[in-house]
Amino acid sequence: MIIDNNFYMNLALNEAWKYQGLTYPNPAVGCTIVGKSSEILAVEAHQKAGAPHAEVNALQSAYYKLTNDKSILSLADSADIHNYLLLNHNNIFTKTKLFTTLEPCSHHGKTPSCASLIYELGIKEVYVGSPDTNVLAQNGKDILTNNGCSVYTKLLAKECDALLLPFKRSLEENFVYFKWAQRLNGTTDDGNVSSLESRTDVHAKRDVCDLLVIGGNTVREDRPKLDARLVDGKAPDILIYSREKEFDKTIALFNVEGREIFIESDFKRVKNYKNVMIEGTDTMYMMTRDIVDYYLCYLSPSFGGSKSFDVCGDKFDILNVTQESEDIIMWMKRI
Amino acid sequence: MIIDNNFYMNLALNEAWKYQGLTYPNPAVGCTIVGKSSEILAVEAHQKAGAPHAEVNALQSAYYKLTNDKSILSLADSADIHNYLLLNHNNIFTKTKLFTTLEPCSHHGKTPSCASLIYELGIKEVYVGSPDTNVLAQNGKDILTNNGCSVYTKLLAKECDALLLPFKRSLEENFVYFKWAQRLNGTTDDGNVSSLESRTDVHAKRDVCDLLVIGGNTVREDRPKLDARLVDGKAPDILIYSREKEFDKTIALFNVEGREIFIESDFKRVKNYKNVMIEGTDTMYMMTRDIVDYYLCYLSPSFGGSKSFDVCGDKFDILNVTQESEDIIMWMKRI
Repeated sequence: MIIDNNFYMNLALNEAWKYQGLTYPNPAVGCTIVGKSSEILAVEAHQKAGAPHAEVNALQSAYYKLTNDKSILSLADSADIHNYLLLNHNNIFTKTKLFTTLEPCSHHGKTPSCASLIYELGIKEVYVGSPDTNVLAQNGKDILTNNGCSVYTKLLAKECDALLLPFKRSLEENFVYFKWAQRLNGTTDDGNVSSLESRTDVHAKRDVCDLLVIGGNTVREDRPKLDARLVDGKAPDILIYSREKEFDKTIALFNVEGREIFIESDFKRVKNYKNVMIEGTDTMYMMTRDIVDYYLCYLSPSFGGSKSFDVCGDKFDILNVTQESEDIIMWMKRI
Repeated sequence: MIIDNNFYMNLALNEAWKYQGLTYPNPAVGCTIVGKSSEILAVEAHQKAGAPHAEVNALQSAYYKLTNDKSILSLADSADIHNYLLLNHNNIFTKTKLFTTLEPCSHHGKTPSCASLIYELGIKEVYVGSPDTNVLAQNGKDILTNNGCSVYTKLLAKECDALLLPFKRSLEENFVYFKWAQRLNGTTDDGNVSSLESRTDVHAKRDVCDLLVIGGNTVREDRPKLDARLVDGKAPDILIYSREKEFDKTIALFNVEGREIFIESDFKRVKNYKNVMIEGTDTMYMMTRDIVDYYLCYLSPSFGGSKSFDVCGDKFDILNVTQESEDIIMWMKRI
């Protein structure tokens, strides 16, 4: 195995994909920091909106690794970590390299930008995957180069762009992903298909979705709640795709507070939302084929059930695959 | 992400799994070498019998990384690498740490043992996953500790033992694995299911199998050759499981030189072989359930076909998952 800049960027990519679908309205971003002897000091990701950016998380971990100063680990707020680093860095970062899947932000909001933090800490080498085209945050590269930093762009650009696509789609129009859980033999029926860890991960994603789309038959048969109780999160609005408008209102999903429910026979409403999860099996898959950006499959390594995905001919690129406890989680793009 | 000894051992594990099924009659082993500043100097694996052990490959790569002396890269023979390292190491390894999934060998054959190479190079810290219980090679740990090296055992022992199991089974009795290729929707029919890269990987595994087991119906329907032509390798012997002994001898597999073919209605012959691959779908799966150690699934991210695995209730532990070009390759154990 070759240990090179691609290797370090791949670590950042894999860490970031763990939080894909959880960072909305922010992008999923990963960051690796490598020390002066090429030692890996940190691999971190942006985990959710409001939490520190990937670079800040990585600089926090790297600072601890280099200094053994535990007090920085108690800081959770991005502004506090910024300030602590600026006051205490003592030039320990001057020979480190920073790898980030997305151009560091130039946005001075509650905290100074990541770009300014990076040059203030004396980091001289930054490797970037995707350029930031968001007008609020772009030009991080220029800030860095204007302050004596060498910036190398487009490292694993294709992979970093695939990681960033959900964010870009949510800015342009919306990001729509189709999520399903299946067994090895392709079945989706007969009780809980995936592990508790996988279902918890789905609930965490529902918590940051603003619309969940589901088929009327699934609602009638499964009587689901479709909330985010496993993470104590907010329940998304629901679009039930159904020609038949009558539903038994004692079905659990109708009795969750703070959500809107629409029963409609088309998908026009999807365009009013920015981060949309579609849950379903083959019928829903075929109907939403043209509006879906990415596919998210929770694959349980088991045989069982009887009702399998019955759709023909589609092929996917696997964008990321990870094993989370028992199951495999795959993000894919139809090709 | 925590960058610690487990991280380094996991790199070795993942590298080794790439060669699982290819190293017979040797074990699959991985090795990571970490420099004095915790920089990763090398992650390598044993790739095939006759080729250098994982430790030797890793020491070769690490030597090059530390010295930039390209001449070592031209050496492929283990004895040559041993000698070159012993003559030229110049004490560059004294502060490195070595992580190996299997206790370094104590076996002095064509080359001195890995254990002796490690202490001769002045490495003082060795982390081991699984102990070597093979009488020919064991006691590497004692050789190391008797020569001033600290050996830390059982690092990710469960994971390293799972990697080693095929080797141990082949020594005790035999290692039997069931291989299949499927699409996302569980189908196994309708032409080539997996990519050329996956099929090439299967041929490389056939090349080191000594017996391939296949069902009579598959032979009649698919008329396969079941050789290792994609890697220019040797074709394994074949056991066709069939009650009906008559076959059209123009079927390609009957016309491959240097192989024995058995047509039998039981699996007793399997015990005469050490490294056995069973290829098949659900019928063969059910019949061989009690003799199979591991399952190897090539998963193509596509929908299609019509004939799906139809077996119920089995669950697996995923031992390793990797993405190789288009497909996913999973090694699993039934639980």
